[in-house]
Order: sequence, then C-alpha cells, then structure tokens
Amino acid sequence: MTEEELNVRKAPQVGTPAGMRALNQRAVLDRLRLDGPSTRPRIAKETGLSKPTVGQALLDLERHGLVRPVGRTTAGPGRSAVVYEPNPAAAHVLGVDIGRQRIRAAVSDLAGSVIARVDERNRCRSADALVRKVRELAVRTVNDAGLELDDVITKVVGSPGVPDTRGRGMHHAPNLPGWERQGLLDELEAVLGPGLVVENDANLAAVGEREYGVAKGVGVFVTVTVGTGIGMGIVIDGRLFRGAHGAAGEVGYLPYPESKEDPHVRGQFEGAAAAHSVVDRAKAIGLTQVRSARDVFVLAKSGDSRALEVVHDEAERLAYLVASVSAVLDPELVVLSGGVGTNIELLQEPMELALRRTTPLVPRIVAGELGDGAVLSGALAVGLTAARDLVFDQREAITL
Amino acid sequence: MTEEELNVRKAPQVGTPAGMRALNQRAVLDRLRLDGPSTRPRIAKETGLSKPTVGQALLDLERHGLVRPVGRTTAGPGRSAVVYEPNPAAAHVLGVDIGRQRIRAAVSDLAGSVIARVDERNRCRSADALVRKVRELAVRTVNDAGLELDDVITKVVGSPGVPDTRGRGMHHAPNLPGWERQGLLDELEAVLGPGLVVENDANLAAVGEREYGVAKGVGVFVTVTVGTGIGMGIVIDGRLFRGAHGAAGEVGYLPYPESKEDPHVRGQFEGAAAAHSVVDRAKAIGLTQVRSARDVFVLAKSGDSRALEVVHDEAERLAYLVASVSAVLDPELVVLSGGVGTNIELLQEPMELALRRTTPLVPRIVAGELGDGAVLSGALAVGLTAARDLVFDQREAITL
Repeated sequence: MTEEELNVRKAPQVGTPAGMRALNQRAVLDRLRLDGPSTRPRIAKETGLSKPTVGQALLDLERHGLVRPVGRTTAGPGRSAVVYEPNPAAAHVLGVDIGRQRIRAAVSDLAGSVIARVDERNRCRSADALVRKVRELAVRTVNDAGLELDDVITKVVGSPGVPDTRGRGMHHAPNLPGWERQGLLDELEAVLGPGLVVENDANLAAVGEREYGVAKGVGVFVTVTVGTGIGMGIVIDGRLFRGAHGAAGEVGYLPYPESKEDPHVRGQFEGAAAAHSVVDRAKAIGLTQVRSARDVFVLAKSGDSRALEVVHDEAERLAYLVASVSAVLDPELVVLSGGVGTNIELLQEPMELALRRTTPLVPRIVAGELGDGAVLSGALAVGLTAARDLVFDQREAITL
Repeated sequence: MTEEELNVRKAPQVGTPAGMRALNQRAVLDRLRLDGPSTRPRIAKETGLSKPTVGQALLDLERHGLVRPVGRTTAGPGRSAVVYEPNPAAAHVLGVDIGRQRIRAAVSDLAGSVIARVDERNRCRSADALVRKVRELAVRTVNDAGLELDDVITKVVGSPGVPDTRGRGMHHAPNLPGWERQGLLDELEAVLGPGLVVENDANLAAVGEREYGVAKGVGVFVTVTVGTGIGMGIVIDGRLFRGAHGAAGEVGYLPYPESKEDPHVRGQFEGAAAAHSVVDRAKAIGLTQVRSARDVFVLAKSGDSRALEVVHDEAERLAYLVASVSAVLDPELVVLSGGVGTNIELLQEPMELALRRTTPLVPRIVAGELGDGAVLSGALAVGLTAARDLVFDQREAITL
C-alpha cells in the first residue's frame, strides 16, 4: 500500500440514521483531535451539533475506546462538565527505518507519543539476515511498548530504493545486498504482518520534516539525504511527489561527468558524492587514517587543512546537486540531512558560494530539524494518518 | 494573471431562482460543449433536467449569444426538434508566441477554430521595438479575423523567461534584449489591452502538447524546447508545475562543468547546448560555411561526417539534460521541440544510447506533435479555458 492508498477512507453512508450517527461521531472525534480535550457543551457550541447529539457521539466513541474522560471542569460559572480527549491507546503504529549503517524502529500511540524506540547498527550482509533483523527489532520494539505485533494497526517501513508493486521487490537499492530481489516486499509482510507500507526513506524524511520539522507549511521543498547513499524526497503543495514510476528524487542517478560508476549498479552522482567517496578522496590526499566520512568532518572541524579541502570539494559536489534540482524544480527550501549532509555548518558556506558561481536560482539551504530521526518520524506520521482513519472505520471491531 | 487565476470562477448564487437558472444554463452549455450539437429533449434526458427547464436555459443562452440553432432533426421517429450548438462566435481569444527568431500570433473562436494566423521573423533589437511589434502583429491578426483588439476577451502571450508579478518584468530572458526591464508586463498590457496573461513559452508548449498533441492524458511529462534558448514545461497530473518562484523547468541553468558562461547572463547548459553552440562547434571543426543550427542538421542529414559529429555531440548534451530531469522528476514522457530539438530522427538514437550509458532511468523521448506551433496552441488553449468561463460569467453584458 502507498500512503495515499491507506488514506482512502470508506465514505460514511449518509442519509441513514447509522450514517448520521457515524458522521456525528467523526465530527466530534476530529474536533477533539484538532483542538485537544473538551467538554460536551463546548463541542456542541463549536460544531453546531446539539448537546444530546454530542453526548450520544461521545458515549459511542467512549464505548469503542476512541475517546476517554480525563477529568471535570472546575473553574468558571455553571455546572462542572466531563472533559474528554481522544484515547491515545486506541491504536499504535510501528515505524522502521532501514539504513545501511543503522536500523531504527519506534512505536507510537495514536496521539503520536513515542512509547518505545530501538536503534541498532545494521551488520546484516544479506537480505535474509536483514529481513530477520527487521522482524527481531520490530518485535522487540512493540514488546518494549507492552504490545505484540498484531496489536499494531499500521507498520511503515522506510528503505532506500523504490518499491516495485508489480515485482514486489525494491528497485535502485544497491547499498543493501540482495535487497532488489523479487518478492522482498512479500517477505517483509510475512514477518511483520498485515497493515504494512513500504516507502522510500528519502520520501519519509520529507514527510517527517513537513510534519514535525523545518519544512512545516512550505509549499515546494526537497529533503536531500547524503550518507551511504544519496536520496531526495520532494513535497509539492504538501504532498509527496513520486514521479511516473516512483523514482522521482533518485538524485544518486544525476549524471556526473567525472564518474567511473556503472550506472546500472550505482548512480554516477552517488558514486561521486556519497560517504564512501569522501573517504576515498581523503585517503587520496594523504589522510590515510580516516575510516569514515565522519572522521573527515571531525578532522575538518579541528582545522585540518587537507580534511577541509575534502569538505570543500564535497560542498561543490552538493552544490552541483542543488543547482540541478533548482533548475528543474525551483524549490523554496532544500533540507540537508544524512551522515554527510548533516554537517551543514561546514558545508553551507562553500555550497552557497559554489551555487552563486553556477546559477541565479539559489534556494534556501537548511539542516533538517529531525537529524537522523527524520525517516522514522516520517514513517510514524504516515502510519498515524492512516491509523486515525482506520480506527474510526473499524471501531465496531476494536476490543481494548 | 496566471492561468489558474483566470480560471477561478465566480460561484453561481445557489438557492436563489436566478442562481438556479444560472446553474441550469451552465449545465446545458457544458453538455453542448462536451458532446456537440444536441436537441432540447436529448439534453433533458442526458442532464436529468426537465424539458421546460432545458428549453428556458436554451432560450436564455441563445439570447446571450452563447448557443445558436444549427438546424432541425429530420430522421427518426417523433417530432423534429431544433438542434443547438455552442456559438463559436460568442468570444475570441488571441495567442502570441514571442520567440527570438520568430513572432507568431493567432486568433481563435470559442470553438477553438483558428480564424487568423500571422508568423513573422523577429528582427527587433530592443524591447521597445518588440513591444511595438507585438502590438502591430496582434492588431493585424485580429483585423484579419474581422475584429478589433477590444473584441478579444483573452490575450495570452508566451515569452521566454519567468513573469515577475512584483516587478512586472520578466526574469531569465537573456535572449530578448531589454526584455528583463521592470514594468515590461505593464507595457504589454498597455498595447494589448485588458484580459492579458503572460506565460513562460515552454510552459505553454507543455499545455499545447497536453491539449492537442502527443501528451494527451499523460500524468507526468515535460516538454523540452531547444532553440535559441532552452526551456522546459512540466505537467504533473494534468496541471502546469511552476515551482516556488515560477522558475521550475528553467533547465538552461543546469550546471554544466565545461561551461564558460557567466550564469547571471546565460545559463551554463543553455550556453553549452542551445542553437548558437551547435554553430560554434560546427565552425570549430571546419564547417566554416554554416550560419545556423539548421544548416548543421541539413548537412548531417546529407551524410556529412563532421556535421554528424556535431549532431552526436549535441545528442549527448541533450541526454545529459534528460538524465538530470529524470533523476529529479521521473517523467513518463519527454517531448522534444524547438529549432534544434525538432530534429529527433537524428538525435533520438544517440541520445538514448548516451542515456543508457548514464542512468537506469530512461523515459520515452518523442517529438512534439505540434512542431513550432506548440507555444501558440498552448496560448490559445489557456485563453479558451478562461474565455469559456468568462463569457458565461459576463453573459448579461455581452452584445454581439
């Protein structure tokens, strides 16, 4: 399922008494979700529904476990009234972020509060091992939250690459060994159970920054993640843009003239600018001791001139990416993240200088606010949106 | 005004008798526009309105000059009925395509039939001269159609660059001398009169191919115009995508490492791949007699090996553009046009070879169906969409 497919809701049957009752319940629930805890008279005033109607809807919602009383009003004139809020425990969602370096999982309740979180190094060297690892982490995280996998209504997994709904595998995920094999999505569904959404990780990072981060309310923006791989999520008018085949934002495939990559294995630009290339370039100019891109940035911060040279070179490469994206999309904002991208205090100035030498189209470049939690936040956000509709549509079936 | 602003319609006042009458008129008119000439009983059957209601609506619409009788049914059982059609003469629109090489103008009636068309070389060397030329051509074209400028309800002008609604000038239009000066949009409005829309020419080419050409019904596509300049129009879900500042698709600004351009005068990629660069590269390898990119393509078609070398080089540059656009947007279709881009029979094969060496994301590349008329067709399409709403909303005021 995609985010959009999950969001397609059954229309309430208008015109029948049951349909009217459902509509009223939904109106009352939405009001509470939007404005926070409230009372029957206040909800009646704000929705225009009668007090008895609101009372009945609250009763129904409470019976289904979707709202709960949290106290009584005490101050002010008039009789004291029961204060209701949406029941955060009405459902839980699981988010998983599968990265080449780390795997993260989190469970949140329906109010969006994270109840459990696990973050581990990814040492898997095969798709089999990784699928098992995902299962193990998912189970551990839901158990930490006092739940079982079946208690989780929606599971959203972020992964590099493009989910292929036909072959049920991932395209364009060269950094995870075996991850492009057919049927992989079915394997994930088999170990995680129903309610699974697999989404490109860069897309989820964009959703995360849109919902909770630096890109709230921005019309056209991109998040660029530079780490083991390079990915980009595109948001247009508040919605993810995926392109004709789901490959929009696969900027690791930008042409890069110097590149020696076989583009059918790894994108030219990814080969030229991802973490591995930073290490290679550092070694090539004598920094033989560095083992990771992080080492290079740490050295640069300490003032090492050769490390600074590598960082400036990297900044020029990222400026090339931003210039390309701006000429095509003209975004208002570019959000940088990932192991490399996150070093914005070192990258920003040389990037902007290089950009101004290249193009008149220079967008704002900022660091993501969510750091390396952006993908996981986006996964939970996608899961929550779907879950809030699902719990309502399935409210008859829910037992708490 | 933008296309969207023009398309914002006044909502009919529902709930009043006049409002109901307007709604019924609009329903009957839309039916005729969509399905072609029809009769009162057939429209009644298809819209679900009563025959007297349809009859009254037709009467009203005819009085306002928006529909007209075109004959009577003769065959079949039952009484003969009057056949009505939308009145093509209810309004006229003007489209203008301002290119560096040529200026084109056309007038169409509300049915979309082109009544007059003018196509001239652009010899203007200043913005003043060009504004006068646009006026002269516009007047000549409407006069050829038996009209005055004031009779034209919408005027849509396509131009290189990005209209700047604040400074009322054009940004990023280096190929038209003086065209970037402040207030230019006001000057155009002064000579063409009210109802003016100025739109990026590459965007209009995309609208043209979407409405009448090769991209009908395609979800995500781009039109790339390569001639004196380089531009791109982007359509997503049937709508133009303009980016955060109207500069989406300004792919002349793609970074191009070999470029020697000052990017604040002319984009790096435009300098490396537009018509002028084709001539320069041909001259550099000894084809001293060529005076235009067209000459080079004609020579290549005749088998000249040096000209073919230049064409292959150009194809590789255009493949670079398509690879960049695909990594960002993942379009289903790339439509090539413009003086250079139109030579697809020479460019396509080497482009696709170069693309496959560069990236796994290879979209379909096709020639535009509308040739060098795409911008003008798009201008008329934008004008017609607006005009069809305007004539209805202003129907009380219209005198024919």
